[in-house]
Order: sequence, then structure tokens, then C-alpha cells
Amino acid sequence: MKAFVYQGPGLKAMEDRPKPEIQAPSDAIVKMVKTTICGTDLHILKGDVATCAPGRILGHEGVGIIDSVGSAVTAFRPGDRVLISCISSCSKCEYCRRGMFSHCTTGGWILGNTIDGTQAEYVRTPHADTSLYPIPEGADEEALVMLSDILPTGFECGVLNGKVAPGSTVAIVGAGPIGLATLLTAQLYSPSELIVIDLDDSRLAVARKFGATQTINSGDGKAAEKVMALTGKRGVDTAIEAVGVPATFLLCQDLVAAGGVIANIGVHGQKVDLHLERLWSQNVAITTRLVDTVTTPMLLKTVQSKKIDPTRLITHRFKLDQILEAYDTFGRAAETQALKVIISV
Amino acid sequence: MKAFVYQGPGLKAMEDRPKPEIQAPSDAIVKMVKTTICGTDLHILKGDVATCAPGRILGHEGVGIIDSVGSAVTAFRPGDRVLISCISSCSKCEYCRRGMFSHCTTGGWILGNTIDGTQAEYVRTPHADTSLYPIPEGADEEALVMLSDILPTGFECGVLNGKVAPGSTVAIVGAGPIGLATLLTAQLYSPSELIVIDLDDSRLAVARKFGATQTINSGDGKAAEKVMALTGKRGVDTAIEAVGVPATFLLCQDLVAAGGVIANIGVHGQKVDLHLERLWSQNVAITTRLVDTVTTPMLLKTVQSKKIDPTRLITHRFKLDQILEAYDTFGRAAETQALKVIISV
Amino acid sequence: MKAFVYQGPGLKAMEDRPKPEIQAPSDAIVKMVKTTICGTDLHILKGDVATCAPGRILGHEGVGIIDSVGSAVTAFRPGDRVLISCISSCSKCEYCRRGMFSHCTTGGWILGNTIDGTQAEYVRTPHADTSLYPIPEGADEEALVMLSDILPTGFECGVLNGKVAPGSTVAIVGAGPIGLATLLTAQLYSPSELIVIDLDDSRLAVARKFGATQTINSGDGKAAEKVMALTGKRGVDTAIEAVGVPATFLLCQDLVAAGGVIANIGVHGQKVDLHLERLWSQNVAITTRLVDTVTTPMLLKTVQSKKIDPTRLITHRFKLDQILEAYDTFGRAAETQALKVIISV
Amino acid sequence: MKAFVYQGPGLKAMEDRPKPEIQAPSDAIVKMVKTTICGTDLHILKGDVATCAPGRILGHEGVGIIDSVGSAVTAFRPGDRVLISCISSCSKCEYCRRGMFSHCTTGGWILGNTIDGTQAEYVRTPHADTSLYPIPEGADEEALVMLSDILPTGFECGVLNGKVAPGSTVAIVGAGPIGLATLLTAQLYSPSELIVIDLDDSRLAVARKFGATQTINSGDGKAAEKVMALTGKRGVDTAIEAVGVPATFLLCQDLVAAGGVIANIGVHGQKVDLHLERLWSQNVAITTRLVDTVTTPMLLKTVQSKKIDPTRLITHRFKLDQILEAYDTFGRAAETQALKVIISV
Repeated sequence: MKAFVYQGPGLKAMEDRPKPEIQAPSDAIVKMVKTTICGTDLHILKGDVATCAPGRILGHEGVGIIDSVGSAVTAFRPGDRVLISCISSCSKCEYCRRGMFSHCTTGGWILGNTIDGTQAEYVRTPHADTSLYPIPEGADEEALVMLSDILPTGFECGVLNGKVAPGSTVAIVGAGPIGLATLLTAQLYSPSELIVIDLDDSRLAVARKFGATQTINSGDGKAAEKVMALTGKRGVDTAIEAVGVPATFLLCQDLVAAGGVIANIGVHGQKVDLHLERLWSQNVAITTRLVDTVTTPMLLKTVQSKKIDPTRLITHRFKLDQILEAYDTFGRAAETQALKVIISV
Repeated sequence: MKAFVYQGPGLKAMEDRPKPEIQAPSDAIVKMVKTTICGTDLHILKGDVATCAPGRILGHEGVGIIDSVGSAVTAFRPGDRVLISCISSCSKCEYCRRGMFSHCTTGGWILGNTIDGTQAEYVRTPHADTSLYPIPEGADEEALVMLSDILPTGFECGVLNGKVAPGSTVAIVGAGPIGLATLLTAQLYSPSELIVIDLDDSRLAVARKFGATQTINSGDGKAAEKVMALTGKRGVDTAIEAVGVPATFLLCQDLVAAGGVIANIGVHGQKVDLHLERLWSQNVAITTRLVDTVTTPMLLKTVQSKKIDPTRLITHRFKLDQILEAYDTFGRAAETQALKVIISV
Repeated sequence: MKAFVYQGPGLKAMEDRPKPEIQAPSDAIVKMVKTTICGTDLHILKGDVATCAPGRILGHEGVGIIDSVGSAVTAFRPGDRVLISCISSCSKCEYCRRGMFSHCTTGGWILGNTIDGTQAEYVRTPHADTSLYPIPEGADEEALVMLSDILPTGFECGVLNGKVAPGSTVAIVGAGPIGLATLLTAQLYSPSELIVIDLDDSRLAVARKFGATQTINSGDGKAAEKVMALTGKRGVDTAIEAVGVPATFLLCQDLVAAGGVIANIGVHGQKVDLHLERLWSQNVAITTRLVDTVTTPMLLKTVQSKKIDPTRLITHRFKLDQILEAYDTFGRAAETQALKVIISV
Repeated sequence: MKAFVYQGPGLKAMEDRPKPEIQAPSDAIVKMVKTTICGTDLHILKGDVATCAPGRILGHEGVGIIDSVGSAVTAFRPGDRVLISCISSCSKCEYCRRGMFSHCTTGGWILGNTIDGTQAEYVRTPHADTSLYPIPEGADEEALVMLSDILPTGFECGVLNGKVAPGSTVAIVGAGPIGLATLLTAQLYSPSELIVIDLDDSRLAVARKFGATQTINSGDGKAAEKVMALTGKRGVDTAIEAVGVPATFLLCQDLVAAGGVIANIGVHGQKVDLHLERLWSQNVAITTRLVDTVTTPMLLKTVQSKKIDPTRLITHRFKLDQILEAYDTFGRAAETQALKVIISV
């Protein structure tokens, strides 16, 4: 089968690989229908993700059709259309029982990382019963591709951890795909202010279309000042970090209100300064989270009932054999205005 | 009246001061019966607390008898015995309505800080109806002095923010009075492990008497390693920082489990390193809090029903005119083994 | 001044009354601008509310302008425009501190019940600092009249108690003003199904306009059956009782899912059957609540940021001297299609 | 093998049955070591449990040793000592994912009900990975038998649903084994009052030994009055129904405080009166629950760390071939003072 393979830092190619086979009774083989590319895939290609060895088929998102199932799989049969979660969950370990699927002792983020992933014609999915979701009749499958990773990430790490609530004030630092997914899902809780901060005016324009009540270009170093002006000098109830660098985490510390939450989504590569000499008395919480995808069923219902439309995140469409072009488009997002790209298999 | 006064960095003295008078309709004048000294008072005396100007009568804890009340006070009458909260709460502002009394716009920590305090024969208490608590018939008033500040601080900032629960594992870093108050109140939730970490073996011996299931002297730099060994390599569900320096906050990051909480109590004087490059994916929460004393009524009930005995924190007793000696004893705690000292007025 | 007075069962009239005066330091006198009529007022007029004696000026809703304040009032000054809460809260008693303003030991629902109310040119409001809310510049005052009682009632007793959540299924039994206020505020949490059940098709038509995803006329006795069909035989996550008679409470028991909540809003005049022989094993919660109006500030923000538009509830407008006509219109709602009537003073 | 079999209303006997075999890949066969009798078993024997057909081996509690496992079982191997949960959980269905194992679509309470149970030499346990728990080295196995059903039932349905908290007031109506298990586990949260109400003075004497702060014999019909006197006329924060008849549920309505919870544990055979004409405005919650056993790991930790000692519930011990005598002793509890009986296999 055709598969997109990470061949080492800076190296990537379409390869011909054998079709995967059932290895454990709880496995399923899924014929891919649509997949996408994640910012994390770009990090892997640079060689920044130590757990992902050269030779790996990338991809941890997508929808497909069950091709075959192991003897212990009871929820799915060949021919079923399924949504693939970026997180595999055994449902049995202590972490899975607490809803921390991301830390599943035999799962977690393994697809396209420690085992072969979804940017191929077929993928083997472990713990199939609890890592795949049935696709409802008539659902928009492109919308559901957004439920594999980006929507639950924004919702769980940003919106739920950040305790977004009716009437509350929210600032999202970073208007990339994750920040925008957070913006979409935050509206499920009807906050009164949704301020989006970024350095790129075209992304801020997208944010306004997606429901931001205010946008701020932080290029002049005055973002915190402006947020204070917008919030009667109190700061925001929820500051969501959706970038992953020290400067944006610092900004969150400057704009969170007493009693508020800083919800970190960004993948950080280095330590950051935490100003406890000021924050120790501010009754704040700082949260981190690798997405657990426990809210996938809830989000599926909000998509089906049209409370949110995740297809707004999709900017480009490619075929699997155009995937190098898709990576190029996604990798030059500043120029191409790419948010999420759909790859049809 | 006699009063203990901060006269500037390094300077302190008993002074003769006029008895305070009602200034606002919601004020009460309280004749002090018993007070105590807080670690914060030592910081003030060093000149480290910018909000506290020379000339200030110190003290924000104690019990007393209502001497007179303003026209708007409805809950108390002269002669009532009362517990004084270290936090004054108007009960009306947005913060008080959210239970964040610490950030009350006309209250918060003002006693012995921005207005005269309790280490005197009389004190004026603003917002009396909602900053004083009636003392139940037959209560042990020395026990209640511990409810002015130290017990709610350990309980709210450490135990509640830390989500201590039946069967959970807890590490308390710092076995000073605050750490020990946290240790006492944590037991209200029946955790299975209560590990106390300090550099002082005699404090650790006290911790064992107070209910620590394990104690670790961190002098050898192996505290995190030992906690990992005690917890099956997972770390603790709750790590409570009760010191306030970068090294102890760092230690908390090393011993918290995935999915756990670092509950900061310590008063920090400088920024700290936060290792987001490791913690971003660990689903942790880091909380800060200036005590709100919203749990004072709850703690009063646990003391009255003998679920906790805060008098175990009391090591020395003095008269008000011995307060310089009391400060000396409390200030040299490593030598004197002082935890909390009671000063009878 | 002119005032609308309950004169005993079946008797009512406009009377000339003296302008009220400050009685306690925490009182304010408010010059009424707009008020409205509540279903409870109709119950009083029938003689069904034992606490309300003949001679009482009715009304517990409205907006006005501060005329004068007592010496302990600090939040308001003459000339301030204010929203009057139907619940008076001292903010000091044990209940107020728990957010149960409805059970305030010196407040609760007293306006137009045990003390004179708002259907007059002036009203005395006890505990003014914590029972009135400042009206933001430029706010639509008719919208805010809906925040005195009906919106917080639907939101607190129905939506919050019912744990309405993104993607959840909700049934509201009763499409009167309270049921419709619940329908509006439930949408702040983006449930996927909002089924409204009533006997009156014209009210159901209004419900569809207000956001119901399904409506059911229960006249044929098949409402539970239809809800089961709509929910894959599981029932709804949240069943909200907004009528107050045994039959509708029974219906809620028939349509709630295992693990769901029955949130009662209705004012009941008699006991009901609870089918514990079936429900004991269904992991359900049944909640009751007299509105506390603790969410008034939150709702004010959602109205100001246009997340909900409560003016949709307003169907008729009158002047104070037309109030008998207003009562007539409101009392014959089935014929007049009246929901809420605005009375300008 | 030897097995205790329900043969129809009023009929029971030891029978010789074939050893059970693996039927599904997720099954395990467990060699029983210790089991016990539940009040529900007595109901089955009377013919009151429609789901349980004659010919059924009874029993849903116990500890044992893994004899063999199906091909999909990964958590256990032959020879492992295990605790058997009374609730079987597939961990995959919507209910299991919400922690509602009691409503598992292919599990729930099936052992000794719809499939053969534990009062035998061997038992087949479906969904073994998530329905059995490993027994820690050195654990007291008789204590763990109490974790199969009675302790999680008291804890989940009574203590957790009832929101028992430090300093709160609790009344437990019914001092049978379930009421006493609730009493033991309630103390994990340090309430200030634990009032136990029953008609049997000897059970009340046991309750006092187990930690009740007050006991009331309700035979004189004055229990509610006495609770009011003990709670300053407010009633209790938590009223726990542990009997299952209309009179005790009614009593709970009479003694719950405004803002409190009635947590039902009792298995009810008929509808009850709910006095909504009084309770509609009392801000109460009434909860029901079939035990989910989601807290078994938490309770195991509290037992291992000696926060509770469930062996206090054990009054008698028998061998499997004495099980008829065991049933007789347990069935005449009023005379024999039996609480829980241990049956060694």
C-alpha cells in the first residue's frame, strides 16, 4: 500500500509498504478514507520528537472503514465507518479509568509516533473498541476528521481546563489551527468576551470571522495592556496558551485576572519563567494537558446538532499521492493561509 | 493601650497608643484576649512587606470580646466572644461574592498590614459582621486562635486546592507551622499517604507525631527519588509547597504524578522555573491562593467535633508585655522548636 | 403615590399610598421605572399564598432609579439606575454565604410578599447593596426586567440544577413564561436536543421560534413515548419540570434517562408520587430550588454580550395606571398569548 | 463442584454442578476462596427478584484465585488473587465510560442474578480485566470481601451522592449492614455529626461503637423532632435512606435541611410520597444509585492504609458446606446480631 514515511530529520517520502495485519485480539485494520496533517507531524519531520523513529508512517487523525477486526473486538464489524482518535485507550488501566486516556499504559499517542499511522491506505488501530468511534449516518466526514485531534485538544486542554463559562472573559494567545479550534469550541459555553491575540493580521481576521469578539496584534508588545483596558483592569478569567514558547506563556501571566486560569495547550520545548513572586497571592490555576479525547462523543453530538461547524478549519484538499504538496502547503501556512488540509485516500 | 509596633526595618517596640474608635458603621472594636505571631510578621519586621508602613501595630490573628460596634453591625453585640479572621471581607464586592475574600476590594489582608492589628489591647475590625465569627459556648479559645489564619491557610491553599481525597497520596514540602497545619487538616479527607519533606529532623519528628505516614529529610538531594520509590514510580497525587523558595517549588515539579496537583502555599520572593517542556503533557494543575478564610465556619465545626486538634501546634505561651520575648522565641524556631506561640492580652 | 394592592382573595385595586421611607441603614428607596407581573402574583390574588396578607403592594421585579439610601449603603447613590432582584440578600447569614440567598434569614422572597413590592411608584428595598444591581450604560432596561426573576429562575432551578451541557439532551415540560425562559438560558450551554412539551400548540410554536429542536403536544398522553423515540429509547439527560402539578412531575420520571436529572422549577401545591420502586436503581437526581439570583451578574453579562435576548419574552406593554388591564391580559394568557408584560411607571 | 442454588421461591439447596468454563475471550474462571451473603440474596430466595430464575447459583461477592482466563484477558494470570466486584463492567459502553458501571449494557449486576454467582467452588466472571481487582500482597482477604458490594454501596450511594463533607451533619436512617457500611465510610470525610436512626437498640449500640455521634430509636415516632433538636432546628445536610420503605424515605424528607441532600440507598418495592408542596422551595437534591463500584480502587487504598476497617462488619464465619446454616443465621439477624457472614470455600 501507499504510505507517507518519516525517513529521518528533514527526510520524508511516499513508500510502498505491506498492508498492516491484526497483531492483538483488540486490534482493527482500518481502510483510510480521509486524513490530515498536524503541526506535530512537522515537528517529527524536523527530528524534534525523540519517540518517533525513522521509518515510521506518520499521521494520527482521520476517518475510514473497518477492514478487519481482532477476536476481542465487539463494537465494530468490517464495513463500519469509523472516526480514529489520535489517542489510543485500553479503557482498563488506571489512567484510562480516570479519563486520562493520554497516559494509557499501553496506548496514548502512539499512532504515527511509536507505531505506524494514518497517512496511508490502511492503518492498524490497537484497542479498537475504545479508540474508534462509529460515524453516524449522514455525517460530514470531513468535519469528523477535525474530531480526531484538533477539536478535542482545543476543547479539553483550553476550554474545559480553562473553565470557560457563560458571561466569562477569555483570551486565546495564538490564532493557529489549535487556537482557532479553541475559539470554535469555547463558544459552546457562551463567554461574553473571546479575545484572540496573534502576530499575524490575516489569522486575526480569520479569528474575527470565527467568533472572536476582539483581536489584538501583539507585535507592539502592548497586548497585556490592551487586554487590561478591555477588561476594566482586571484581566481575563481564562487565558489560553496556544503557541508553546516562553513569551506567550509569559503574556498569559500578565493578562490573567485574580481567580483566573491559565490553560496551557502549547507544546513547550524549554522551561519558562513563572512569576510566583506576583502570582502566589492571585488565586490562579495553571493547567497542562495532553488531549485525552474523552470528549469525542460529546463533540460529535455538538457537530451533529450543528452547534459548531469544524469544516470552517479546512482550507485545502489533496489526494494521498499529493501528500508532499499537502505538507508543503501546510508547512508554509503564513503564505498559504492554510489551517487544516484534508487528504483523501 | 499597650500595642506592639513595627517601627521600620529591624525596629520594633511596645508603645502606648490610644484605644481605637469606630470609624465606619460596619466596624467593631474588639478587646483582645489571645493573639499569636505569624511568619509574615517576621517578614514585616525585616522590611520585606512594602504595604506595611512603619508605625503599624502588627498582628492579624486572635480571639477577643466585642467592646463596641458601629450602627450597621447586626451580628454582634458588646460582650460577645469572637474569633478574628486574618482576612476582612465586605461580603458585597464581586470578589467576596465569589468566595475570594482575600481580594475583597475594601478588605482582604489589611489587619496588621495597612491598618493596625491585633497585637494590642484593642483592635478595630472593619466589616465586622463578616470578618468576625462567634465563639461557641465552651470552645477552647487557644484552639480557635489557630483558625484566624494558619489552619484555613493550610486547608484552603493546600488541602482544598490540592484536591486531597480518600486514598490519595500527598507530599507536603516544608514542615514549618504552615506545613504542619496542612498536615493536620489534610487528614480530614483520609489520604492514604501523607509524606512530609523538610531539612530539619526535629520538625520531621513532629510531623510523624501529627500523622505523617512517611518523612524525608531532603538534605541529601534525594527526596524526589525517595518519593518515587514510595509511590511505585508514579509520584504523588498532591504536592503541597509550604516553603516559598525556588528549590522547593522545583522539588514539587519532580514529585507530582501525571494528573496531579501542585498546590502552592509558600510566599515567594522571586520567580521560579516551570519545566513546561516536561509538564505540558502531564495533565497537572498548579494552584496559588492567598487564604480566603471562607472555610472558617467549616473548620470551626471540625474543631468543635474534635476531628482535628489545632492546639497541637501551640508550643509556647506568653503575656502581651512579654511579646518581645515571644518574637525572639518564634524567630529562633530552629533552636526553640517553636511552632505557634500564644500571647494572652 | 400610586400602588397596586392585593386586598384579599379575588380583590385588587390601585390605591394611593404614602411614599416609602428608609427604615434600616441598609435600605434604599427606588423610584420605579419599569416592572412586570409574575405568575406568583396571580396566585397571591387568588389567596393561595399564605405569607402575603391583604393590604400588600404586589410586585417583586423591575428596574428603577435610586431615590435615597440608608447610612450603611455604599454601593449606590441617588440617581443610579438599578435592577431589583426578586430575592433580597443580607450577604451575611449562613445561607447567603453559601449562595442560598433564597433562604436569607432576613431576606429571601419578601418584596411583594411580606413587605410592599414594586408595582408602585416607589419601593423600599432592604439589603440594598446586595439585592440591587447597577445597570450598565446603554443597557436595554426592558431586557433587564427579565433578570429580576424569570431568567435566573429558569437558569438556576432548571439549567444549572439540571446540569445542561454541550451535546446533552433536555426536555422542558411546560412552555409558559418560565419554561420559555429556561429554553432561552439552556442554549448558553449548547445542548444538542431541546425538546419542549406542552398542551398548547401556540406556546409550542413560540418554543420552536425560541430554539426548541423538537416540540410535543402531550394532549394525547404519548409524550414519554415520543421522547423515547427521539432519544434512542434512553430518555433525556435533563428533564425540567416547569408547571408544578403531579402529572407533569410524573411525566418527568417517565422520560429521564438513567444517570439523568429531574430539575423541578414548578411551584407545587400538593404531594406527588415518586416511583422509587423503579428509580432507586436508575442513578438519577431530583432537584428543587427557590431561585437564589446568585447568577444575576453572570446573566447580565450574557445579555450585554447578546448571547441571549430576553426581550423575546415580552409580548405586551402598559402604563402603571393600566395595571388592571395588564393583569387581565396576563391572566388570560391562553387567549392573549401573553408571556411577560412590561409596565412603565 | 459444590454450589448454592436458588430453586424457586422458598426453595434452596447445595447442588453438585459442573465447573464453569470460559465462554468469551474476556472471561475468567475464579476459584473461590471466600464469599458472603447479601440482603439481596434473601430477596431472591423469597422470589422477589424477577430477573433471577430458579436454578441460579447465588452470590455476587467474594475473593478468589484466577483459575483460567480467556484470550483477551491481559490483566490477570492463573494464580493471581483477585477481588470480585458485584458489578461487571465492559469498560467500553457509553455507561461504563461515564463511570456508570451499574448500567453496563453487557454487564452490571449479573453475577448471582442473570448468570451463576460466587457461592460455589468456581465462578465465571465476564469482563474480567475490568470487573476483578488484584489483591495487594499481605492484604486481609476477609476485609476485601466487604469491598465487593457493601462498602462501595454505602460509599457511592450514600456518602458520595450525599456530599458528606468535613464539619457537615449526617443522618443515616437504618443501621443494618448497609447503614453501618455507610457509617464507616462516611468517616473518611470527617463530618461533625453522624446520627444513626433505627428501631433496634442493639444495632444502635453497634452504630455507636462504629462511630455514630448520636443514635435515635425511631420507635416513638419522634426521630425527626429529635434530629431537629440536635441540629438547631435546621435539619441535617445529608439524610441517607438505608432501608427501602416509604416510612423511612418520608422520615428523610422530614429531617433534611434546606440546601441538603437525601441520598437513597434502599431498594424500594413501591412508590413513595414526595412532599414537593413543601420541598419545592427547599433547594434539596434527592439521589438514587445502583452501586457502580467505580470507587473500589479508592476504597482498597483506604483499607490498605487502615483508614477504615471493614472487618468490623463481620460477625460470623462458616464453611461453604455450612451455607444453609449461614443463610439461617444471616436471615435471623435480629436474633443472631449478624451483620456480614464470611463463607470460606
